[in-house]
Amino acid sequence: MLADTSQFEIVLAARAAEVEAVLDRLLTSRAGPGEIVRPDRLLQAMRHGVLNGGKRLRPLLVMESAALFDGDPADALRVAAALECVHCYSLIHDDLPSMDDDDLRRGQPTVHRAFDEATAILAGDSLLTLAFDILASCESALAASANIELVAGLARAAGIGGMAGGQALDLAAGSAAPDEAGIITLQAMKTGALIRYACEAGAIAGGANQAERERLSEFGAAIGLAFQLADDLLDLSADAGVMGKATGKDAAAGKATLAALHGQDWARRQLSGLVAQAQALLEPFGERAAVLDAAAAFIASRRR
Amino acid sequence: MLADTSQFEIVLAARAAEVEAVLDRLLTSRAGPGEIVRPDRLLQAMRHGVLNGGKRLRPLLVMESAALFDGDPADALRVAAALECVHCYSLIHDDLPSMDDDDLRRGQPTVHRAFDEATAILAGDSLLTLAFDILASCESALAASANIELVAGLARAAGIGGMAGGQALDLAAGSAAPDEAGIITLQAMKTGALIRYACEAGAIAGGANQAERERLSEFGAAIGLAFQLADDLLDLSADAGVMGKATGKDAAAGKATLAALHGQDWARRQLSGLVAQAQALLEPFGERAAVLDAAAAFIASRRR
Repeated sequence: MLADTSQFEIVLAARAAEVEAVLDRLLTSRAGPGEIVRPDRLLQAMRHGVLNGGKRLRPLLVMESAALFDGDPADALRVAAALECVHCYSLIHDDLPSMDDDDLRRGQPTVHRAFDEATAILAGDSLLTLAFDILASCESALAASANIELVAGLARAAGIGGMAGGQALDLAAGSAAPDEAGIITLQAMKTGALIRYACEAGAIAGGANQAERERLSEFGAAIGLAFQLADDLLDLSADAGVMGKATGKDAAAGKATLAALHGQDWARRQLSGLVAQAQALLEPFGERAAVLDAAAAFIASRRR
Repeated sequence: MLADTSQFEIVLAARAAEVEAVLDRLLTSRAGPGEIVRPDRLLQAMRHGVLNGGKRLRPLLVMESAALFDGDPADALRVAAALECVHCYSLIHDDLPSMDDDDLRRGQPTVHRAFDEATAILAGDSLLTLAFDILASCESALAASANIELVAGLARAAGIGGMAGGQALDLAAGSAAPDEAGIITLQAMKTGALIRYACEAGAIAGGANQAERERLSEFGAAIGLAFQLADDLLDLSADAGVMGKATGKDAAAGKATLAALHGQDWARRQLSGLVAQAQALLEPFGERAAVLDAAAAFIASRRR
């Protein structure tokens, strides 16, 4: 196991650098095969939305889940980059004036503020599309059947029955506060689906068998719940300086969260339980799962 | 060859009914595998944007291109439905206030008018995502490698180097009119890429060899150009009643088109040449290509 959180953060930064190098290379002005030209302003908007200092937690989950098995790390890196494109597209669209109307993201102007609204919509659309291009651009030994599973899984995690549907529920929650079951569904879709997919996709890219894939999917589900609870707690307590965006916003908008519903003490106990549950799922993998084990702890303890 | 345009329109309507039955079945409230729930309002917005009386020209191109070969028609139908989801997503986003700001589409309120802007953005996002889910949901004999090619091809036709990039160029053309080369690039991306892909994807789904795929891709490129010229001509001449939306709009906005640049006579001559070129590409397929042959003529002569 890793000694402490700072040791994990070093690994996280190294993984982030790896995936950012891939994203930087994918987001160049040179048109890929089957493309005509890449309009520069749109490309710059995509780069603004992607190469923005994100923690790259989802890519780390893909890469470390894959590293439990014996697949080619280049495959996992490709899947990680695709997943990060989807995550960044969702942030760009969520920030739009008709959605959460945010001017800042990680202390920088959001894409529609730095460019314009139409360009932000198209940048999101193009990143979502690029993610599937990346998954399908198989230059490796990974079987086409595994690639197809990765495409289907990403589509389901990100679509109406997953992340995009979760954002729709979140918008609706502004006018009619959901009950506890409604909050759980909303969060499982809006943030849970993609985190869960990150871990399962890593397992697929690594060449895991069906039982191992399901174990990683369960691990992803547990840390997805932990991620959301930690977010709720941060939102209840953190100040705007640490978050780099307006906070207390959810509470101010009367948004229901499990932490708000049951209180911070309950949320912290839940969080510890979820981390323990997630870490227990990693036991069969021994020392090979040290980084994932630390990731679960990091997610629960993160300050931003 | 088909006797006349009205005979082609009967085939087009029959193919439209086939793909609409598939789309209707795909857009149900029942969550698919890997999905959690499908929020009803978002689903209704997707249905509004898809099941709206479109001509379904692109699905017809997929299905008829596939019918030149001996693949399972169910595969072509699936690919056709995926492509139509992408086409409909692009219309929903193009109609948004920050883009073309259209209130009507085929005489009905656009999705952001019938619902709201955020829901329209998410409906488009979810349709784009669903398209890849459909392509990857392989229940047929089509090889996974063919499915992966279909995914990659769709992503490239629809992304920054294709349709979405074309829309970005189109928005930019509002402030700085492109020259002839710029117009050609813009149109090849905004409308050409998806039409071309429709024909090539049909060939892939039908089991064509590489040379046949390239032939269908060339056919698609020719009719894509014809489609755009016919559109330009319609825009120069048609009245609002026939189009079901505001016309003369491109001209009013000072938008450059090849027909506006070179005149209507030139455009009509070009159009005839493109149809002849497209039809010549179909010769090796004989009577089996009768509907595609008629489609090329229909595209050039259409009134809306």
